[in-house]
Amino acid sequence: MSTRPPSMRDVASRAGVSLSTVSRVMRGAPGVAPQVRERVRNAADELSYVVSRNASGLVTGRTGRVSVVVPYLKPWFFGSVLAGISEVLREADLDMLVYQVGDLRPQPGWTRTLPLRRNCDAVITVSMDLSEEECHRLDDVGVPLVLTGQRVPGRASVFIDDQAGAAGATRHLLNLGHTRIAYIGSRGDSWYSGSSMNRLRGYQAAMGKAGLTPWSLIKPPGHEGGEHAMGELLSDLDPPTAVLAEFDDIAMGAHRALRRSGIGVPEAISLMGFDNHEGAAILDLTTVDQSPADIGAAAGRLAVEITEGTRPRDTHLEMPTQIIPRQSTSAPRSVRGLS
Amino acid sequence: MSTRPPSMRDVASRAGVSLSTVSRVMRGAPGVAPQVRERVRNAADELSYVVSRNASGLVTGRTGRVSVVVPYLKPWFFGSVLAGISEVLREADLDMLVYQVGDLRPQPGWTRTLPLRRNCDAVITVSMDLSEEECHRLDDVGVPLVLTGQRVPGRASVFIDDQAGAAGATRHLLNLGHTRIAYIGSRGDSWYSGSSMNRLRGYQAAMGKAGLTPWSLIKPPGHEGGEHAMGELLSDLDPPTAVLAEFDDIAMGAHRALRRSGIGVPEAISLMGFDNHEGAAILDLTTVDQSPADIGAAAGRLAVEITEGTRPRDTHLEMPTQIIPRQSTSAPRSVRGLS
Repeated sequence: MSTRPPSMRDVASRAGVSLSTVSRVMRGAPGVAPQVRERVRNAADELSYVVSRNASGLVTGRTGRVSVVVPYLKPWFFGSVLAGISEVLREADLDMLVYQVGDLRPQPGWTRTLPLRRNCDAVITVSMDLSEEECHRLDDVGVPLVLTGQRVPGRASVFIDDQAGAAGATRHLLNLGHTRIAYIGSRGDSWYSGSSMNRLRGYQAAMGKAGLTPWSLIKPPGHEGGEHAMGELLSDLDPPTAVLAEFDDIAMGAHRALRRSGIGVPEAISLMGFDNHEGAAILDLTTVDQSPADIGAAAGRLAVEITEGTRPRDTHLEMPTQIIPRQSTSAPRSVRGLS
Repeated sequence: MSTRPPSMRDVASRAGVSLSTVSRVMRGAPGVAPQVRERVRNAADELSYVVSRNASGLVTGRTGRVSVVVPYLKPWFFGSVLAGISEVLREADLDMLVYQVGDLRPQPGWTRTLPLRRNCDAVITVSMDLSEEECHRLDDVGVPLVLTGQRVPGRASVFIDDQAGAAGATRHLLNLGHTRIAYIGSRGDSWYSGSSMNRLRGYQAAMGKAGLTPWSLIKPPGHEGGEHAMGELLSDLDPPTAVLAEFDDIAMGAHRALRRSGIGVPEAISLMGFDNHEGAAILDLTTVDQSPADIGAAAGRLAVEITEGTRPRDTHLEMPTQIIPRQSTSAPRSVRGLS
């Protein structure tokens, strides 16, 4: 016994508890009395026991891992989604593999470069905006696929209603009395993402319903896009009194352009974003919250439940959005002048 | 052959190239001619070949995985470090497991709750500020350990010189002509992190050398800490003309307090952060860049090299920092008045 590493069974027997209690304590799951938790930890300590992933894999025939596929890891959004997924997977005693697709994405066969086969029990994609063909490629891996940030008929999807969110944001500005409302959207080198398309549609629909002509500028994604678009809007013959940005990064770039030009927000121009980036709070930016950590947690749970067979593979979960009013939006000057 | 999944060997033989060429193409590594790449992709396509992690594991006796342990996943810093690690690991054909320790950390046995044993070939910790005892616990896992964000004698560490960085930042403000320079630092519930301690020391040392009395406020980490501290400084009998924050999040909270109070930055108060958060660019905040993606890439390479035995286990890599001057710092009014 001196050279064999201690097993979970050894810990259970030393602490005088069941195997499943040891498992719960070891993965930090709730529902174990503090004294029992303490006893298990002490027993594990005395035996220098460390959790091994192999043991459970041999029993269940599963790998005990879920793969998460993201386009990039740097933007705040993905960290928040991963945080939500990570907490759910830990609770379910599963590990999280993370793949950043990055510059591989434009290559047609990128799905094959991910070592997913026989390496995980489920795959979660985050805001990858997969084509039908890419979904089929990932089906080849042979494990359940959960898509977040897009809604695909017949497939497990966790998403928000981007169109309704953008329409609501537009109505917020209309209700404040604005009529000259510009929209700054984004698109990649040659394509719109589904979410970009839907937010633009939501803005256009709300403007149309109000009998107003939509006024949209489409730029590459990121701060710079917002900054350039705002530069254009500020050089218009009759600039807008309010600007809605497709996401907060764009709004933050627009905010910088306004600050540098000494133009008051919201005194001269109201500015609104979408996503509730942590920087939006810093800038007092009115925005639409979509809670990426909750999206991650929902996707994680869905992956676990589909793997366990307790949830159908075509489950759709629509997550709520809500408008967060802050100090970057107010009534336009002319309306204020009348009141 | 109809039911056996196609192997990398099948792809190599169909494309008429070596196994290692297929491997390079599949993991997106450079150094393969475009036509060859195309041929390999077509062969893989025709065979519906998908990379499997198992095959290589059986050959090398390794798991093909590196575990990354982070305190939290939400803050921007960790996403950037993970992006750097991820790119290096992909290049080395290794998978990345990510563990968020979060609220488990205060529990004394948290290292045991991570299923690291026989589950990965190396462990990278990111800004965990591990104690000697925690390092020993992770040694029990039996694979190389690479620490980032802290410098531990005798152990593989990737770090910046926080003390020198903060001293340089302080000198930047001194050189602009400021003498009333306050410092906003952070500490957790009951402890300072090593990095917090070193940045505070750097500030104190630079002030001392200039014959000035250090003036530091220590708050809980985050925007709120910066906001509260700035509130205190603004209610001082003789407020500072410049403020250095331990990191950009704190500076951004301080920036919001100043904006809400209508106090000009840098006209009335110069403000400087540390880290080069993406929000710092948005706010035109002068800061100290520490390039977390480079730190991640260096840690990833070190983990790979130590695992392969080509780098000693006690390698220390000090990463550079640099001051990024932006519009939030300038000479104080009195100095400007004289010039």
